[in-house]
Amino acid sequence: MDNTKEQVLQAYRFRHACKEFDPDRKISEADFAYILETGRLSPSSFGFEPWQFVVLQNADMRAKLLPVTWGAQKTLPTASHFLLILSRRPSELMPDSEYIASISAQVQELPQEVAAKKKEMYHRFLESDFALLGNDRAMFEWGCRQAYIALGNMMTSAAMIGIDSCPIEGFDKEQVERILEEEGILDRSRLGVACMAAFGYRVREPRAKTRRPVEQVVTWVN
Amino acid sequence: MDNTKEQVLQAYRFRHACKEFDPDRKISEADFAYILETGRLSPSSFGFEPWQFVVLQNADMRAKLLPVTWGAQKTLPTASHFLLILSRRPSELMPDSEYIASISAQVQELPQEVAAKKKEMYHRFLESDFALLGNDRAMFEWGCRQAYIALGNMMTSAAMIGIDSCPIEGFDKEQVERILEEEGILDRSRLGVACMAAFGYRVREPRAKTRRPVEQVVTWVN
Repeated sequence: MDNTKEQVLQAYRFRHACKEFDPDRKISEADFAYILETGRLSPSSFGFEPWQFVVLQNADMRAKLLPVTWGAQKTLPTASHFLLILSRRPSELMPDSEYIASISAQVQELPQEVAAKKKEMYHRFLESDFALLGNDRAMFEWGCRQAYIALGNMMTSAAMIGIDSCPIEGFDKEQVERILEEEGILDRSRLGVACMAAFGYRVREPRAKTRRPVEQVVTWVN
Repeated sequence: MDNTKEQVLQAYRFRHACKEFDPDRKISEADFAYILETGRLSPSSFGFEPWQFVVLQNADMRAKLLPVTWGAQKTLPTASHFLLILSRRPSELMPDSEYIASISAQVQELPQEVAAKKKEMYHRFLESDFALLGNDRAMFEWGCRQAYIALGNMMTSAAMIGIDSCPIEGFDKEQVERILEEEGILDRSRLGVACMAAFGYRVREPRAKTRRPVEQVVTWVN
């Protein structure tokens, strides 16, 4: 177990926001399937998996996004695999939506009365706890929170097997979504872009990692 | 490497939202320090680490939260370690805030002109890309997105060494924050509660994990 802990911590030390990849090194199909699998198996609130993953391998499409994605100037052209992480819009996350119904019935296979009770609980949650109901932006963000669990997990999984990554928020969301919709990649009535993530192999070693010391981050209430 | 992948995937199969822990089994100090360390070393946008972690071990405090935390009815009393994950409020995330300045200067140790350039980029990001500036709720949520990266990572790290966890959003944020502030645990002018996470050892085996099949989650644009 101490070995496992050390191996995991080593992956955290290895990982950095890799701003440029070796264009000649490709991630194997099996390795990328493994990375995606850890995203797919990630937890989400109520188990609703609000995310969708688009693997953008087409060079023309990557070139089209380049002018509106300042945070990926060197990773869009060089990444072995470039991921768009989408999250569901409020309409798809409403308790009465087809999507939520399909998760309860087809994915989670809940008995009807359990599904009904869960739906009621979910409605109450949206209404009260985080004040999400009626606030479209907050509700989209709530889906994005879950998407970032998958994002973090995929970057760590990659690092566990020596694969580099870069999370990307530096893009004009409006323009990116407009382009993706024009190209038939995104249905904006159902989904929006939460973030992007590039994967590949580094061309150079990163600067030393910096973080606040643990005493500044953690408080114990004993 | 195939061993590592299998070991990681095994952790994903092991992990579930553990709703009740064995009250007699405690996570060792070293193991919980390792879990926190993967949260601390998690990536965040601009490297701003908007999170704070509060380990709530005091039984009276846990009891006080119980009536307003419906999602942790059995985990608050039984968790070996109970974590509040806080995220910074907009005032702390503004480009001119003391917190952001301290990250640039003391943590990242950026030379003055690099710090100035980064601040300018950050200001532009807040203003344009995600339309965060002037939208306090969206800006708090943006910090929460980052906090969920740490949340996901800590749950996975725990699973890697056979420790169970439960992420918790089922709480009345307003009431929880009021109580924490009264107790001197939270300064609401600077921080808010993003989510909670309980850690410990399961008392029973979970239901089988359900997820949409990969074909429904992933699209390739080749």
